[in-house]
Amino acid sequence: MDLGIVKTEYFKIEGELPLECGKSIKDIQVAYETYGTLNENKDNAILVLHALTADAHAAGKHSEDDRKSGWWDNMIGPDKAFDTNKYFVISSNVLGGCKGTTGPSSINPNTNKPYALDFPIITITDMVEVQKKLIDFLGIKKLTVVGGSMGGMQALEWSVNYPDIVNRAIVIASTSRLSAQAIAFNAVGRNAIISDENFNDGNYYDKEHPTQGLGIARMVGHITYLSEEAMHNKFGRDFKNKPSFDFGVDFQVESYLDYQGRIFVDRFDANSYLYITKAVDYFDLPKKHGSLKEAFQKTKARFLIICFSSDWLFTPKQSKEMVSALIQAEVPVSFVEIQSTLGHDAFLIEVENQTKIIKGFLRGQDGKA
Amino acid sequence: MDLGIVKTEYFKIEGELPLECGKSIKDIQVAYETYGTLNENKDNAILVLHALTADAHAAGKHSEDDRKSGWWDNMIGPDKAFDTNKYFVISSNVLGGCKGTTGPSSINPNTNKPYALDFPIITITDMVEVQKKLIDFLGIKKLTVVGGSMGGMQALEWSVNYPDIVNRAIVIASTSRLSAQAIAFNAVGRNAIISDENFNDGNYYDKEHPTQGLGIARMVGHITYLSEEAMHNKFGRDFKNKPSFDFGVDFQVESYLDYQGRIFVDRFDANSYLYITKAVDYFDLPKKHGSLKEAFQKTKARFLIICFSSDWLFTPKQSKEMVSALIQAEVPVSFVEIQSTLGHDAFLIEVENQTKIIKGFLRGQDGKA
Repeated sequence: MDLGIVKTEYFKIEGELPLECGKSIKDIQVAYETYGTLNENKDNAILVLHALTADAHAAGKHSEDDRKSGWWDNMIGPDKAFDTNKYFVISSNVLGGCKGTTGPSSINPNTNKPYALDFPIITITDMVEVQKKLIDFLGIKKLTVVGGSMGGMQALEWSVNYPDIVNRAIVIASTSRLSAQAIAFNAVGRNAIISDENFNDGNYYDKEHPTQGLGIARMVGHITYLSEEAMHNKFGRDFKNKPSFDFGVDFQVESYLDYQGRIFVDRFDANSYLYITKAVDYFDLPKKHGSLKEAFQKTKARFLIICFSSDWLFTPKQSKEMVSALIQAEVPVSFVEIQSTLGHDAFLIEVENQTKIIKGFLRGQDGKA
Repeated sequence: MDLGIVKTEYFKIEGELPLECGKSIKDIQVAYETYGTLNENKDNAILVLHALTADAHAAGKHSEDDRKSGWWDNMIGPDKAFDTNKYFVISSNVLGGCKGTTGPSSINPNTNKPYALDFPIITITDMVEVQKKLIDFLGIKKLTVVGGSMGGMQALEWSVNYPDIVNRAIVIASTSRLSAQAIAFNAVGRNAIISDENFNDGNYYDKEHPTQGLGIARMVGHITYLSEEAMHNKFGRDFKNKPSFDFGVDFQVESYLDYQGRIFVDRFDANSYLYITKAVDYFDLPKKHGSLKEAFQKTKARFLIICFSSDWLFTPKQSKEMVSALIQAEVPVSFVEIQSTLGHDAFLIEVENQTKIIKGFLRGQDGKA
């Protein structure tokens, strides 16, 4: 069963919110959606935390004729992994995004123009601080946090920074810090955006946007989201038609990436891409707390760590490092490595396996302190 | 011992050379170097075939005050893997290149302007045809071919197309066809070049060059040349200085890629990058001959296949596919997978291991038919 029609709502953080970089942002708006009903004890809430380019619209449709449902609709709804008959599910767009929450494309109240690169550098910690304001506003007392990829980073940050609120954390296809290789891919993406002739130091909102650069950044991203095997199975060396003997789109895999690049630029802001990838690069839980074990000694949550065997961007090795540190910190942790050829993207696709595991984890923990 | 001072020489193919695409190129110039002495039987020649962006200058120095030696100087010279006391080593710049052999930056004799994108699409087969003219010109009767990466593709093509000349083929960190993932990375690189505001349909030779795009292509390339482990060991998550909280170069790995991009654009032509990566993408030995086994049934060479355990661009799996097909085709083959953390770049760096293996292979085969 599906959720049916849902609606994005907006919450405003009045005044200045101080950021990790030392600057602050005034009157932040937060776009969010909720699914299911908050119980009387206000302790059945699950906060869903999105990855790089998603939004508050995690499940359901905005109107009957919506072609697509929210980005994690296969996991959120009645009887699904995050069962809205039992849980009150909350999803919000991250700070720095471009889907309703304040970001570089928002109007700077001090200038009445878009922030562009005057937007301060934000971190995963800042994203979580904004979500904390929303959770307080909603009156939530106890919280399960869950996220894949960058969403998992936020879940980690939540569990360490708010031990009295977070009682369960589900961290999927994520890491306590990016590898040098993943930073390198993000750097290439940002470089492509900044090099675009239309970038104009980020002040492109009333002109042509840097769509070529953003498209290239997205192409690079999509290569890293798929495993080599998935790409082989999906496209192999097939030509779109026949060898073109020119520099147009030739192979199926080129056609796929070209398409992914083109549809992305219509839905995402290049400046947001810069800010959010930077936040991901900077995230380093062990460094911030001395070590990963010391970080996890601050949490009171029970953990479920899920990773995917063919994920080479947020690797099983990185998940196992977290599991090892959690155990050393005497934190209850369940760990599953799902065998999948789908690469990093698996967290959005491998519904059946994840549903069984997550349902079991939540049932096994319900009612515990 | 080193070779000392060497000199690039030039050879001209008079008239039209027909290409695989159906077009032809007139009066091709070939830049080449030779090291050592051709024996009386003219059967001690080794043709060294270069990778994507190298040149004819494989060993020695061009002048006493040259800071750097040729790109494979650690492997070519007296007593080295390719021992110039015994062998006559030949190295030439590939067709489509920008280092002395005719390519898109050369003057089109029909227009007296650079070819730019009027240069026809070339293939690995075409590169080999040009080398064949040089080998005939030098009077070579028997030939050992050797190459890493794209150089290995040329060695494969040589061994299959000229079985009566090639008696030994050494194929290092190479493949009989790129994976979908490798094609995808090349497509991103080409896309970055073509999207550059200075690209101007390839007609940039008298203007600003598309250096931003070419730099991005090179950054992507370098990520794929290193293993994740090598990047981790080399850079980790170290900052260049401290977190900049802006979008400049921040991490050491960014600094490395930025540097690699910047030095590359001074030495390489963007159009050549387009043409040569396309040739690599198109190379598909099994498809051309029906299967890899059928391809190898045409060779009379003895093979040495070398791969590197951490090479994820030209993978050990791909090398093993070649070994399997060679054995099925009853072709003598030796195979070594060198344990290395250095990724694809290992073929340029792992000198000691390669030297032992290659020397043994060549000694064991010398004097055989």
